Amino acid sequence: MTISTLVDQTIAAIGPLDADAVTAAESRQGLLTKPPGSLGRLESLSVRLAGIFGQPIPQVTGKAVIVCAGDHGVASEGVSAYPAEVTPQMVFNFLAGGAAINALARHAGADITVIDAGVAVDLEPQPGLTIAKVGYGAGNIATGPAMSRDDAVRCLEIGINAANASADAGANLIAGGDMGIGNTTPSAAITAAITGADVATVTGRGTGVDYEALEGKIATIRRALDVNEPDGEDGLDVLTKVGGYEIGVLAGVMLGAAARNCAVIVDGFISGAAALIAWRLCPEIAQRYIAAHRSVEPGHNVGLQAMGLSPLLNMDMRLGEGTGAALAMHIVEASAKILSEMATFAEAGVSDRDDE
Amino acid sequence: MTISTLVDQTIAAIGPLDADAVTAAESRQGLLTKPPGSLGRLESLSVRLAGIFGQPIPQVTGKAVIVCAGDHGVASEGVSAYPAEVTPQMVFNFLAGGAAINALARHAGADITVIDAGVAVDLEPQPGLTIAKVGYGAGNIATGPAMSRDDAVRCLEIGINAANASADAGANLIAGGDMGIGNTTPSAAITAAITGADVATVTGRGTGVDYEALEGKIATIRRALDVNEPDGEDGLDVLTKVGGYEIGVLAGVMLGAAARNCAVIVDGFISGAAALIAWRLCPEIAQRYIAAHRSVEPGHNVGLQAMGLSPLLNMDMRLGEGTGAALAMHIVEASAKILSEMATFAEAGVSDRDDE
Repeated sequence: MTISTLVDQTIAAIGPLDADAVTAAESRQGLLTKPPGSLGRLESLSVRLAGIFGQPIPQVTGKAVIVCAGDHGVASEGVSAYPAEVTPQMVFNFLAGGAAINALARHAGADITVIDAGVAVDLEPQPGLTIAKVGYGAGNIATGPAMSRDDAVRCLEIGINAANASADAGANLIAGGDMGIGNTTPSAAITAAITGADVATVTGRGTGVDYEALEGKIATIRRALDVNEPDGEDGLDVLTKVGGYEIGVLAGVMLGAAARNCAVIVDGFISGAAALIAWRLCPEIAQRYIAAHRSVEPGHNVGLQAMGLSPLLNMDMRLGEGTGAALAMHIVEASAKILSEMATFAEAGVSDRDDE
Repeated sequence: MTISTLVDQTIAAIGPLDADAVTAAESRQGLLTKPPGSLGRLESLSVRLAGIFGQPIPQVTGKAVIVCAGDHGVASEGVSAYPAEVTPQMVFNFLAGGAAINALARHAGADITVIDAGVAVDLEPQPGLTIAKVGYGAGNIATGPAMSRDDAVRCLEIGINAANASADAGANLIAGGDMGIGNTTPSAAITAAITGADVATVTGRGTGVDYEALEGKIATIRRALDVNEPDGEDGLDVLTKVGGYEIGVLAGVMLGAAARNCAVIVDGFISGAAALIAWRLCPEIAQRYIAAHRSVEPGHNVGLQAMGLSPLLNMDMRLGEGTGAALAMHIVEASAKILSEMATFAEAGVSDRDDE
């Protein structure tokens, strides 16, 4: 499938993991001063990271969270507990450093980039904000497509460029984060379209709608799928018909990061939906995903399971913004440090079990 | 019960959580720029921390891992996959900085103290090593008590002093870590004695014994309980009869840390057994425990459940040394930073759901 020169080249650059680095990391894990396997998922994570980076002893050189904001016409259907004006307000909160992702990214030592992918109002240019507005809020998916196919391609390209900028700045752990009032609704539609799961099983309360509103949200998502008939095998079609601008940019970030041999740290439900789109465009990308956490949103786990991913954290979080991804970066980096900083049995003069 | 002046005073200093700080932290969580509850366990953790520190906005001032080493006569029963000489070898590995806990504590920004609580051989004094040897390896619990009651009290006192030293140095997140070939065996005995669980349900493969050795290990632990008849209601009796020196020091570390209003970050199975002993001596301490992770060792979760604790991480780890605790410190600190660094809706000019 030809999408655009940049997208095609990016997808073509995403190959399998480096098998030699994987083998070397696995065998080094067996030499380190601990019973084999005793560090559990830290060990398997370190091996995965070796394969992603193409380094027998992977080195985390930098961490980045790319927060993408956009509005959604479907918010007018009453699917969110918050008014749409919160999207631009939160963008300013990100830029002022007062949001949860700011606190957690600082704690993780990660840089933050904020992208206006499609907020419904014009934002004042200011340091730290990339204005790459594809439109003023995505279309109401309950009545028609979210965007044109050309705009969906633009979203991917914006994300790829953003990931390249972060990689150029030295990051090799890259996470996307989302902000967009109403965006659990398109995310549920995307998850249902791509995984084939029933809408009711992938729809949750988002920022906190009540039971009645949840029923309405499910009906809205069913309508969106009926009206738009997205082809679940075609990631670009799904993005076009039931996606959103920030979700498309997030999918592009993931493709771009994977093409640069970075680890893609997948945040919650909205990032998971973006990850599904990128995965449909490039199935090999799943090996470069590290699922940060299991969101409270029920659709998140459905999407992760479809891609064969098992999340690192289970903290009952459901905020988005990249918060779960930022929190998990410490663990990912810890796994790399096990390989680079631990002594082997031979180096430390410790008897291995074989020495008995 | 009178144990000793130091132990009694320490236990008396462990009161309930600061209710005012808890209330203040809870209400602040509701004002921060996020849907209420959307940070899940980070929110409840921050509230717990507020209560432990007695601060409405808790501040992590320092982190410490106190690694306690000791040998076990019961290792001669073939309960471990590694020879006992590994205990002192690993102590030197800790001091040289090449063990897993060194990598993870550095990554967490935590200081490490290493205590020789009862290694079976004399260790050369050197910087970073506290020699507080209560004995040359605990007694073989399959045939008699681990130690005398006086020695059990000494273990607690050594741990209390170590925790005080860490608190004096500025730490308020304090974890114990263990090293001792054979120490999952006394830990299983302690867990069975205190929780009343069947030995087979709390006994695992430790560093990696095979099925046949596991059956032998279970039989050994049953014998230890039959021979010693520990009183599960009396933590000191359990420590005396089926404990170990490093386990007793760990229990003391927990009592000492809690008495100083520090958060006690509970590591894996051995630390969990020590936590059970301290809990029997002072039931209120459980509110000051933060369970870092769920060990692969089946008895760990049995102990945590008895104390009403739910672990933060589930990484399939089973190494000990404080590794899981060190890994979880980042998350604990993250929860505090949410309270101290996030803006409120009013500060950020963001519309709350009530503003609709």
